Amino acid sequence: MVFGAGGFIGANLCLALRDRVKELTGFGRAEAPVALRGVPWVRGDFTDPDTYDSALSGCDIAVHLVGASTPASANTDMVGDVINNVVASLHFLDACRRHGVKRVIFVSSGGTIYGVPDVIPTPETYPPEPITAYAVSKLAIERYLSLHRHLYGLEYRVLRVANPYGPFQSAARGQGVVAAFMDKALANLPIEVWGDGSVVRDYVYVTDVVDAIVAAMTHDGPSRVFNIGGGRGHSLDEVINAIAGATGRPLERREKPGRIIDAPRSILDISRAQAELGWTPRTGLKEGLAKTLAWRSDQT
Amino acid sequence: MVFGAGGFIGANLCLALRDRVKELTGFGRAEAPVALRGVPWVRGDFTDPDTYDSALSGCDIAVHLVGASTPASANTDMVGDVINNVVASLHFLDACRRHGVKRVIFVSSGGTIYGVPDVIPTPETYPPEPITAYAVSKLAIERYLSLHRHLYGLEYRVLRVANPYGPFQSAARGQGVVAAFMDKALANLPIEVWGDGSVVRDYVYVTDVVDAIVAAMTHDGPSRVFNIGGGRGHSLDEVINAIAGATGRPLERREKPGRIIDAPRSILDISRAQAELGWTPRTGLKEGLAKTLAWRSDQT
Repeated sequence: MVFGAGGFIGANLCLALRDRVKELTGFGRAEAPVALRGVPWVRGDFTDPDTYDSALSGCDIAVHLVGASTPASANTDMVGDVINNVVASLHFLDACRRHGVKRVIFVSSGGTIYGVPDVIPTPETYPPEPITAYAVSKLAIERYLSLHRHLYGLEYRVLRVANPYGPFQSAARGQGVVAAFMDKALANLPIEVWGDGSVVRDYVYVTDVVDAIVAAMTHDGPSRVFNIGGGRGHSLDEVINAIAGATGRPLERREKPGRIIDAPRSILDISRAQAELGWTPRTGLKEGLAKTLAWRSDQT
Repeated sequence: MVFGAGGFIGANLCLALRDRVKELTGFGRAEAPVALRGVPWVRGDFTDPDTYDSALSGCDIAVHLVGASTPASANTDMVGDVINNVVASLHFLDACRRHGVKRVIFVSSGGTIYGVPDVIPTPETYPPEPITAYAVSKLAIERYLSLHRHLYGLEYRVLRVANPYGPFQSAARGQGVVAAFMDKALANLPIEVWGDGSVVRDYVYVTDVVDAIVAAMTHDGPSRVFNIGGGRGHSLDEVINAIAGATGRPLERREKPGRIIDAPRSILDISRAQAELGWTPRTGLKEGLAKTLAWRSDQT
């Protein structure tokens, strides 16, 4: 059962899983996206466990992709962020325990959880020093997962995903610069850049993320927390140029001051996932952007 | 202003501060304890910021000692633990920010936050691996403190206190084995011991904790998180024998199975506090137990 199945990563995951698992159920706030028609679907509110409780019965693996806030919104409403993410996840874990779910996969935030690390690429063992409430609540959920394993034997894996991009990513939902800048490029509108474009991020194509989730569903090694990234960093300038190249539209920039919630550089050390999950990112930025553009063309 | 002023550490702190600071206000759920009569007092519920908001006006330093759960109770009601501790602390930090409080001191849990560490004595840099919801929420509050400094410049210090004991500790409130065992010894009742008595803890006398809080109020060094412990470990057997010695009553034991929430050994590395706060524990276990007994005699 995939929670947050109508979202960016969720839709991609459901498409990949629909022919690969015995039974798949999607859970989302809205109706299933058109692409997921035919996938058994439960509509509900993640903060209200009654809306998914009976659907969890008989479920072996629950994938938790629900994120009720963004790094920016969480800081302006930390209480809401805790209630909608941490408390809702505690209810979710309790339901998983009651229904005998065997494993929970949680997608956490590799891009924010370490804060401003002085080790780059950053390994999972780096002590997290979040500078956003968004990351504090993700980290708390990770700890409650560990606790539920300790207390109740509920198995779990955490994937700390860097900056994912690709099909189904929505600029309207504030889901990342690639979707936002692509929208603007295709509409011939200027883009807004926080800071001077030198900020480095670790971009990972969404089907690579999906592959990691699938590997984590059956993983049986000693580690339970994995960084999932593209294996290298790209400056915002590089991304902007790559989008301009892929779309064939030069992008006009409007610079805004850098944000206090942005680390200057974030690149994940993915060697643990490579060694233990037998996983590696296969799609480079240029190829990923081309695929994303191709998907967008198919939608119109 | 001391939050949780009527509690174990709070009462000791207020007694120490009443003649040392310009203005002292205590905040607690109940009336001020008899010993604190004369200290300006605000009664209210920490989860309801309206009850203390106006009292924070003009306050320079707020000491947060409120704990709404115990390691055992937090695990059975994780949602309640998050609401009453984490969410309440977020409201508190927001009020501190609005009122221009200069510094927050938060007493965290040195005995539970590291989980089952493989480095003993355990330094502050050890990656926390909580095995109780109690510790997960303490850690989340620590992170929100760091975040409020990052975002709003609200200064803070965290004291991760080991197992404090001494005057005002209450067995009825589930505040630790020393008070519980002393109660039983003086009442000639058998004590209940979880596990075989080999569990090692780091006991610290409460006036030593108070000294550390006072030092943290004006500390100006690079670190913001400090372990506060007794500097050595004692097995439960040692504590039981020491209480028997101090009270002159042999203690009859009833052994119960070890609890899953108890680490076998917990001793804090306090060298950072010794170096940076100019603080060191001055009261050994035997002396501390004698003082605690003397205080109890004065109460009756």
